[in-house]
Amino acid sequence: MALSHFDAQGKIKMVDVAGKETTARRAVASAKVLLSKETIEILKSKENPKGNPLEIARIAGIMAAKQTSNLIPLCHQINLSKVDVQTKIADYGVYLEAEAKTDSQTGVEMEALTAVAVAALTIYDMCKAVQKNIQITEIQLESKTGGKSDFEKN
Amino acid sequence: MALSHFDAQGKIKMVDVAGKETTARRAVASAKVLLSKETIEILKSKENPKGNPLEIARIAGIMAAKQTSNLIPLCHQINLSKVDVQTKIADYGVYLEAEAKTDSQTGVEMEALTAVAVAALTIYDMCKAVQKNIQITEIQLESKTGGKSDFEKN
Amino acid sequence: MALSHFDAQGKIKMVDVAGKETTARRAVASAKVLLSKETIEILKSKENPKGNPLEIARIAGIMAAKQTSNLIPLCHQINLSKVDVQTKIADYGVYLEAEAKTDSQTGVEMEALTAVAVAALTIYDMCKAVQKNIQITEIQLESKTGGKSDFEKN
Amino acid sequence: MALSHFDAQGKIKMVDVAGKETTARRAVASAKVLLSKETIEILKSKENPKGNPLEIARIAGIMAAKQTSNLIPLCHQINLSKVDVQTKIADYGVYLEAEAKTDSQTGVEMEALTAVAVAALTIYDMCKAVQKNIQITEIQLESKTGGKSDFEKN
Amino acid sequence: MALSHFDAQGKIKMVDVAGKETTARRAVASAKVLLSKETIEILKSKENPKGNPLEIARIAGIMAAKQTSNLIPLCHQINLSKVDVQTKIADYGVYLEAEAKTDSQTGVEMEALTAVAVAALTIYDMCKAVQKNIQITEIQLESKTGGKSDFEKN
Amino acid sequence: MALSHFDAQGKIKMVDVAGKETTARRAVASAKVLLSKETIEILKSKENPKGNPLEIARIAGIMAAKQTSNLIPLCHQINLSKVDVQTKIADYGVYLEAEAKTDSQTGVEMEALTAVAVAALTIYDMCKAVQKNIQITEIQLESKTGGKSDFEKN
Repeated sequence: MALSHFDAQGKIKMVDVAGKETTARRAVASAKVLLSKETIEILKSKENPKGNPLEIARIAGIMAAKQTSNLIPLCHQINLSKVDVQTKIADYGVYLEAEAKTDSQTGVEMEALTAVAVAALTIYDMCKAVQKNIQITEIQLESKTGGKSDFEKN
Repeated sequence: MALSHFDAQGKIKMVDVAGKETTARRAVASAKVLLSKETIEILKSKENPKGNPLEIARIAGIMAAKQTSNLIPLCHQINLSKVDVQTKIADYGVYLEAEAKTDSQTGVEMEALTAVAVAALTIYDMCKAVQKNIQITEIQLESKTGGKSDFEKN
Repeated sequence: MALSHFDAQGKIKMVDVAGKETTARRAVASAKVLLSKETIEILKSKENPKGNPLEIARIAGIMAAKQTSNLIPLCHQINLSKVDVQTKIADYGVYLEAEAKTDSQTGVEMEALTAVAVAALTIYDMCKAVQKNIQITEIQLESKTGGKSDFEKN
Repeated sequence: MALSHFDAQGKIKMVDVAGKETTARRAVASAKVLLSKETIEILKSKENPKGNPLEIARIAGIMAAKQTSNLIPLCHQINLSKVDVQTKIADYGVYLEAEAKTDSQTGVEMEALTAVAVAALTIYDMCKAVQKNIQITEIQLESKTGGKSDFEKN
Repeated sequence: MALSHFDAQGKIKMVDVAGKETTARRAVASAKVLLSKETIEILKSKENPKGNPLEIARIAGIMAAKQTSNLIPLCHQINLSKVDVQTKIADYGVYLEAEAKTDSQTGVEMEALTAVAVAALTIYDMCKAVQKNIQITEIQLESKTGGKSDFEKN
Repeated sequence: MALSHFDAQGKIKMVDVAGKETTARRAVASAKVLLSKETIEILKSKENPKGNPLEIARIAGIMAAKQTSNLIPLCHQINLSKVDVQTKIADYGVYLEAEAKTDSQTGVEMEALTAVAVAALTIYDMCKAVQKNIQITEIQLESKTGGKSDFEKN
């Protein structure tokens, strides 16, 4: 087994997907933002129609997914057929889950992961005035389908 | 105390920094990428002049820091006087630390956090062919100086 | 009938186009920039090979169409097979018309509308030194074909 | 009087602001989205905490303002100290108003105008499934202060 | 024969590729960075795992190729199936070669050329502190296949 | 003497300009596009008000200069007070010259060089249908002032 982004001489490379089949691909990623009880209460009180911070985070995540290939050097440009970010207030803070879909020659794990990462950073940004020691944690892949091998997190 | 990005009516807003003093500001953020022993070994074997994956991650993080205000909806545009990302292979995977500096009316926490997040995602991208259950964790602020109040993580 | 960008729970979403057929799609949009007689005269006098302001506006519109999915949060990324902006000096100012084409699973109305909007803003920018009360008006869809239902403005 | 973006030979140019004083500048722009009664009712019914379409439009406008110099060819790069977009449902559809502020050598009219234009396009995008003949109209400057001459719309 | 980007009236236009066949396309471009003996020696001494400047240039070129349609006004958006930049220290400085591939209705010459140009500019940037009279030269197409006519540089 | 972008350990870095003085800085760069007699004739015939290709190249160069820090990994974000690109048809093809100005803590050589490089690529793009062996050559700095040391090409 080998890192996919390195050629025989050890030089970095973008994987050549020219020969790969176009298939329906889907990836789901998740992340957690750890917040204090006080911050969670303030966040809940802001869940109103005039500016729910979790909705802002969702939009930021959706827009970031479309920028993935501009952020991650060796990612291919992919036209997503769908990207969505869901958020849920939990007792530890906020749980985020992103779904990315495409009909493409390569997978969309990085798009889903970028979506949750930037959505989580956006929550951080909106809460940082009330809490300095926020932590974003457990950014991970939940599942992926449509490529050479499927994956489902245990 | 209140979320800084919401006005009196509860609508989201970008903080108005027009009245704030220009000061020398600095923020340091960190993150961890949790990798298996096998992946760490492969990563170490790639630390060669022809394409060290950790160097690629560093550059991705530096470039992402300059995109912060395009990713995080309510972040101000800031011209960074410096941004750097350092990486270190640890027994759990990779430790990342980013430093952002500016002479500005507002702080650079989000720039440092965005740098480590995208650098960590780049490591994920380069290692995902050999390990499917990678986790990015503990994205957090280490310290910040130059604003209304300094912060140092305990 | 329902807003396409909201799910059953009322949360925003990007429409999932994964199941939709790839068809040849085309959209035409228009806009007007209302200018004073004096500004129109100056504009006409600048229609020379060394820097026709209407040509600059056309290019700005063409480039903006390619940025549509980065500007409009829930727009899909679309590779345009063609985008063009035409301009015409009228007695009220400037008429703009943009055409966008693609072979895709989703339509290109927003690309055509973004093209005329940014082209109009570019004309505004170049004329604002001579006239302060410029108005951009009647940004609208002229026609669209290739999707579930065609549209032709009456 | 002359178009500011043309030199003595008639060639386009970006205005040289190197010699200009840094002052506190502010611009307000507005726009209208003309919608049918039916669309307005649907829009009102969606003003809920889980995804108010007007909030999405506000964020899109704020983010677009930060992209102004990438969209309008001869605009200077400006670090905004504040940008905000307000929306209000009226009997004709939606009224939008954007405020942009900076401490800079050049004004922020184009930033405020770009913000309302893209916010209006975002409302268009979210409503286009229920109404095909939407019109964006009266994109205009409301006021500007801080430059060589102030402006207030009559 | 005619410039492809101009219509019958002499107006600029993006070529309409809607009717063109999707084929596997590939382009190779090259460039040279002319450096003094001293600069070449310093560059060679930096070819170490902690930050090979030629690796940074390669990544910059790869990322720039993905931005081609945002830089060159009349270029189509293309999803590259592969892009790679190779560098070699020569006695005159650095030789760069980029390869771009796609399955698309239009060619990838501009993507390969943009990759080598930005990679060369990145080398310039890293060497400019030690040498002021660096020259980037001979940016040219080496070969292209997959379009109406193939090309191979003599 | 040392490459400015490498630290004591040999790792890449962005130069820290936090301590540097803000001065008026200016850089001029040039490039040549080598064209056949036939292509030059076609180009000349297109110098009309409806779409002068050299004007399109100028705008592309101006817009690219504003993207410099997004293209060159270790470049600082700089707000340009002016950027201009001039073009001249010569017997060998097209001569391009770009001027970039700023009041900043760091220089604008890379902005001027990026402007001529992208303007030259744009000319390439518009002429490539009529000539396959175009060459962009002699991209170089003409002069710079305002930094630690001035430079004037011999």
